[in-house]
Amino acid sequence: MTASQAFHDWMKTVQSTMEHALASFLPEAGHAPARLHEAMRYAVLDGGKRVRPLLVFAAGDLFEAEAALLARAAAAVEMIHAYSLVHDDMPCMDDDALRRGKPTVHVKYDEATALLVGDALQAQAFLALLQAEGAPPARLLAMLRLLAHASGSVGMCGGQAIDLESVGLTLSLAQLEQMHRLKTGALLRASVLLGAMSGKELASAEVAALDAYSAAIGLAFQVVDDVLDATADSATLGKTAGKDAADNKPTYVSILGLAQSQALAEKLRNDAHHALIPFGDKARRLRELADLIVQRNA
Amino acid sequence: MTASQAFHDWMKTVQSTMEHALASFLPEAGHAPARLHEAMRYAVLDGGKRVRPLLVFAAGDLFEAEAALLARAAAAVEMIHAYSLVHDDMPCMDDDALRRGKPTVHVKYDEATALLVGDALQAQAFLALLQAEGAPPARLLAMLRLLAHASGSVGMCGGQAIDLESVGLTLSLAQLEQMHRLKTGALLRASVLLGAMSGKELASAEVAALDAYSAAIGLAFQVVDDVLDATADSATLGKTAGKDAADNKPTYVSILGLAQSQALAEKLRNDAHHALIPFGDKARRLRELADLIVQRNA
Repeated sequence: MTASQAFHDWMKTVQSTMEHALASFLPEAGHAPARLHEAMRYAVLDGGKRVRPLLVFAAGDLFEAEAALLARAAAAVEMIHAYSLVHDDMPCMDDDALRRGKPTVHVKYDEATALLVGDALQAQAFLALLQAEGAPPARLLAMLRLLAHASGSVGMCGGQAIDLESVGLTLSLAQLEQMHRLKTGALLRASVLLGAMSGKELASAEVAALDAYSAAIGLAFQVVDDVLDATADSATLGKTAGKDAADNKPTYVSILGLAQSQALAEKLRNDAHHALIPFGDKARRLRELADLIVQRNA
Repeated sequence: MTASQAFHDWMKTVQSTMEHALASFLPEAGHAPARLHEAMRYAVLDGGKRVRPLLVFAAGDLFEAEAALLARAAAAVEMIHAYSLVHDDMPCMDDDALRRGKPTVHVKYDEATALLVGDALQAQAFLALLQAEGAPPARLLAMLRLLAHASGSVGMCGGQAIDLESVGLTLSLAQLEQMHRLKTGALLRASVLLGAMSGKELASAEVAALDAYSAAIGLAFQVVDDVLDATADSATLGKTAGKDAADNKPTYVSILGLAQSQALAEKLRNDAHHALIPFGDKARRLRELADLIVQRNA
């Protein structure tokens, strides 16, 4: 079996594990209020590449973390991500009708339900991690603090607020980076750290190395997103392509051009690999995920 | 000093303590993203009677809880409450322009900001409690689980979902109670239990007694809300009066009539007092809060 075949199989296993974990950590669709629970499951299940859970599990390899705790940490991050997509797609934000190849929640249900689905999913995300067994309570509290920080006003929500304010403005490269560092970077970093923390309490040098890795893949993720938005079609993306240009949003492609954006993504991949050297072979999946993030086509 | 003067002074002290605590647990308005942080503070500070924090502190008296932990538990509940008001007021939900005598967040700022303010406040609520020091980690985790449960799809959000579905329907008294038990009751119950848990781990008989108290005041709170919506004016309420009838929403007044609703509130006050008997004199503030909830005029 080639290395890439082994990685592919590992991904399929994690994705399948996560589908089951998410399904079991969400309230059942028949449980009252049934429409809300059905819509929550619609928003989370059967969708996406599960990049964040893959990062959680890959980082878990570094310190032999237990699968049950990894599944809960990964589910928590994925539910936060899913709630942010539901709210992002609403008419008062990006007003998007297509997500992961399916109608968005407010289109499939209605706006008020989409609002409540996002709100309830955020609480459910914390609950998924709070119900973890096996981790020492103090470490679990540190993981929850990390998650709350990464998703709140100085993390993901803060990045979205900066994004809102920047529509139509000419951003510098530094400002664009700062926006993405919060908007998507904070939760990707949390995924990596939560996976590692599922194994043990981290030393500061370990946090620093994982931060360098996370910063590189976080930025690479966004650069590639911008490249794909400019080059791919909606069917391949599973969401509306070309929206950034249509919305007059600043992107890496609009600031750097296409070729330089692609070169930047390649450089960031090398940075990510470099940051993982101290972890040796145990960082194999994290390295392969950096490759995947840069080489994906959707 | 009369008993009611002592209660009044105690309330003022808790309200003032909470204003400072909330101000210090929220990111500063100048901290980037400044507009989001300013709007979060606008949504939370200088508003409301702080009924939930009062319940937290009153229940804290039962077991000599530390003030610092009570302030964090109370801030967490109040931020959850505040975020729910911001989202409730949005055009896709209740579409209300006035709250606590001030323009609602989406009116003062814009809809997208209101959405993010609510999202970020929910994360901030968990963070406020997660940053508590002094409580044993396992007990803090139990408190966080309670909060997540009370605010999510089988708590507050679930109640709002049922509320949405019930507009224009003829609800039975049992269905109306179930809706309010989740929509407002779950968070009021969480306030009482979080206050008590700040002092010690609760025995099941203590939880049962506090549940009986919480159920009674939770329902009383809603019955009185419905009575006030039907009888008071907007200036006194600090929000738009008569909205329930205008929105064709089922209320206690519409089902039971005004006189029977007032009698029910009185009965629930007695139920609340009765539930507190095992706690003796230490439950004085909880008893007085039950009186306040039934006798308030706004």
